[in-house]
Amino acid sequence: MENFIYSISTRVYFGRDTLHHLEHEIPRYASRILFVYGGGSIKRLGMYEEITAILKTHHIAYEELPGVQPNPRLASVKEGIRLCRDHDLRFLLAVGGGSVIDCAKAIAAGVPYKDDPWDFFTGKTQVQHPLPVGTVLTVAGTGSEMNGNAVITNTDTAQKLAVRSDLLRPQFSILDPSLTFTVPREQTAAGIVDIYSHILEQYFSPTPNTYVQDRISEALLRTCLKYGPIALREPTNYNARAQLMWTSSLALNSLLTYGKITDWATHAIEHKVSAVTDVTHGVGLAILTPAWMEYVSAEDPAGRFVDYAQRVWGIEGRKRVAIVKKGIEKTKAFFASLGMPTRLKDVGVQENQLQDMAHSIVGTGEIGKFRRLNETDVYSILKNAY
Amino acid sequence: MENFIYSISTRVYFGRDTLHHLEHEIPRYASRILFVYGGGSIKRLGMYEEITAILKTHHIAYEELPGVQPNPRLASVKEGIRLCRDHDLRFLLAVGGGSVIDCAKAIAAGVPYKDDPWDFFTGKTQVQHPLPVGTVLTVAGTGSEMNGNAVITNTDTAQKLAVRSDLLRPQFSILDPSLTFTVPREQTAAGIVDIYSHILEQYFSPTPNTYVQDRISEALLRTCLKYGPIALREPTNYNARAQLMWTSSLALNSLLTYGKITDWATHAIEHKVSAVTDVTHGVGLAILTPAWMEYVSAEDPAGRFVDYAQRVWGIEGRKRVAIVKKGIEKTKAFFASLGMPTRLKDVGVQENQLQDMAHSIVGTGEIGKFRRLNETDVYSILKNAY
Repeated sequence: MENFIYSISTRVYFGRDTLHHLEHEIPRYASRILFVYGGGSIKRLGMYEEITAILKTHHIAYEELPGVQPNPRLASVKEGIRLCRDHDLRFLLAVGGGSVIDCAKAIAAGVPYKDDPWDFFTGKTQVQHPLPVGTVLTVAGTGSEMNGNAVITNTDTAQKLAVRSDLLRPQFSILDPSLTFTVPREQTAAGIVDIYSHILEQYFSPTPNTYVQDRISEALLRTCLKYGPIALREPTNYNARAQLMWTSSLALNSLLTYGKITDWATHAIEHKVSAVTDVTHGVGLAILTPAWMEYVSAEDPAGRFVDYAQRVWGIEGRKRVAIVKKGIEKTKAFFASLGMPTRLKDVGVQENQLQDMAHSIVGTGEIGKFRRLNETDVYSILKNAY
Repeated sequence: MENFIYSISTRVYFGRDTLHHLEHEIPRYASRILFVYGGGSIKRLGMYEEITAILKTHHIAYEELPGVQPNPRLASVKEGIRLCRDHDLRFLLAVGGGSVIDCAKAIAAGVPYKDDPWDFFTGKTQVQHPLPVGTVLTVAGTGSEMNGNAVITNTDTAQKLAVRSDLLRPQFSILDPSLTFTVPREQTAAGIVDIYSHILEQYFSPTPNTYVQDRISEALLRTCLKYGPIALREPTNYNARAQLMWTSSLALNSLLTYGKITDWATHAIEHKVSAVTDVTHGVGLAILTPAWMEYVSAEDPAGRFVDYAQRVWGIEGRKRVAIVKKGIEKTKAFFASLGMPTRLKDVGVQENQLQDMAHSIVGTGEIGKFRRLNETDVYSILKNAY
């Protein structure tokens, strides 16, 4: 086990009818805020009226940044920064899924920073004194509601990059599973894959002696397997939505990472795929995860893939190779059962793009920690997934 | 799943050589502190010198409250409060196990409170504006290093009562597993039982649809089963000590409780046993847990005891009654393998005390939530454990 510093500071209000906590939370931080949201779904749900009524009743002045897209754009971030500066807004309320929350975090980081906010993503500068952020989550998947991560797409450079800072953890997040009842089937499914992938990226680690972390990871994976299909069949099943929503937060709030070096190669590859095609993140992960598994499992001396197959899927048998193969097949079948495409060619990638993509993903070094991957490795994975 | 508010605010510095974090943490809160510790072990370990050197170098003035006992006494709490008031101390540094930390929390609550600090424990008043607390943990078990609980013994009334408040969560805790290498065998074993029992008290719940919480609980239980015996055999095995220490914190930092109603009947009974006999908490729990299980498992329509036997102990079979019985037998055998006594008569309880104890434990109501227990039930459990 590696040394670590545990610090998960976000307060979470979890459960039905928890929106009213905005009343006492927001005034702790500011009286002038930016209200960030995505498409029209929060208006259809009646949440827009509910939230603006709360803001008005409590004399909280607000400007709006609507229309934040999936794979949120740097342009939205810049627009939000401008609004905060022009109107002296001191707090960001993000209402939506991970894209909206990520966009709000990037704005929060950018307001006090004089230069281009893309600098946070290229590593040119670090986050300092961001504005505080609060969230109301309406889609389970990214885990952004409890962590300090934000992923932003720069369409000028065709890059999708992440920033990470404990300072960007939301001050509070409101998680009402019933707000996810109306999430469309495809988006629910993509969220489940995203959760599952986040757990795997941390499960596959070169760090030895992480028993408790690994058993917790398996607990979370099995929760996805149990409740994912239920949520798709019965979108208004509160328990399924609640189990997935809480699992989603635990999957990426750092709990699984503490004490471990983690992999994240599949995410690095996927970010390129969705920067090139604008495919939903979870869809890209569903295609790439089994391809990564097939490529990497060949060399797995510690038997992490055996663990995975046995403990998550209950696969029995004596031959390691067969056990591992079955675990990967089960994973593929699970993603397919959620309605996910299985090939890169099905989501708009052209075969002649693969080499450039591999080059761009790896840059001058390597990606991944469970297994280091160079450009040739990444090209093979992309080819396998094509 | 029940609604819940997640708020685990303690920063944890986990790993080898983390003591130096005191240097930047304490000055965030105060320049005059009370240094609370227990017996001479921190002097034998050289920690006393190391810590006081840090305090001196960083110009942090301190008074000492040494000699805090296991099952810490109200008298120590009052002495600590007096020292803080007399010397205008504004922060508590607790170095030791749960008893030392609990004592420091009670002092922290009591300093700004005009009346008897026992009032927090009887429920006469609530914690408000406590002094901040930081800890250096030297024994794994109670989980006090990340939670807002404190248990104090009042020898005048032969009561051992708890106070709970998020305000009493330590600001920071330093968890260096190597500091537990020299914990004596008996105390290590009692700590393991304590951790195991904390998990069970939350695992056995009347709340349905808590799949992810339950699978995480089983992950933690299995970590105790795996690493408890290793830590006893090889006291300086860093990985075993690290897994137990982190499991101990996760077991009682609220993670397992969120979304659930939890039981705590066994703890209520044990607190009386150790108030009467001064037996170590974990020893009392080792005796009482199987007795509680045997009494309560007879009525378990939801099959939680079947889950427990199958998922924690891997017991197979088709007959529910036999599966449950085996699970309880395995639990008993595990505690016995740690060197725990198995009968109340072995730890100084007299048979003619049982009726009065049952009466005093239950008071005018009932205890437990998984199964409500009245005085007759508790008497039966005590008799079974005698």
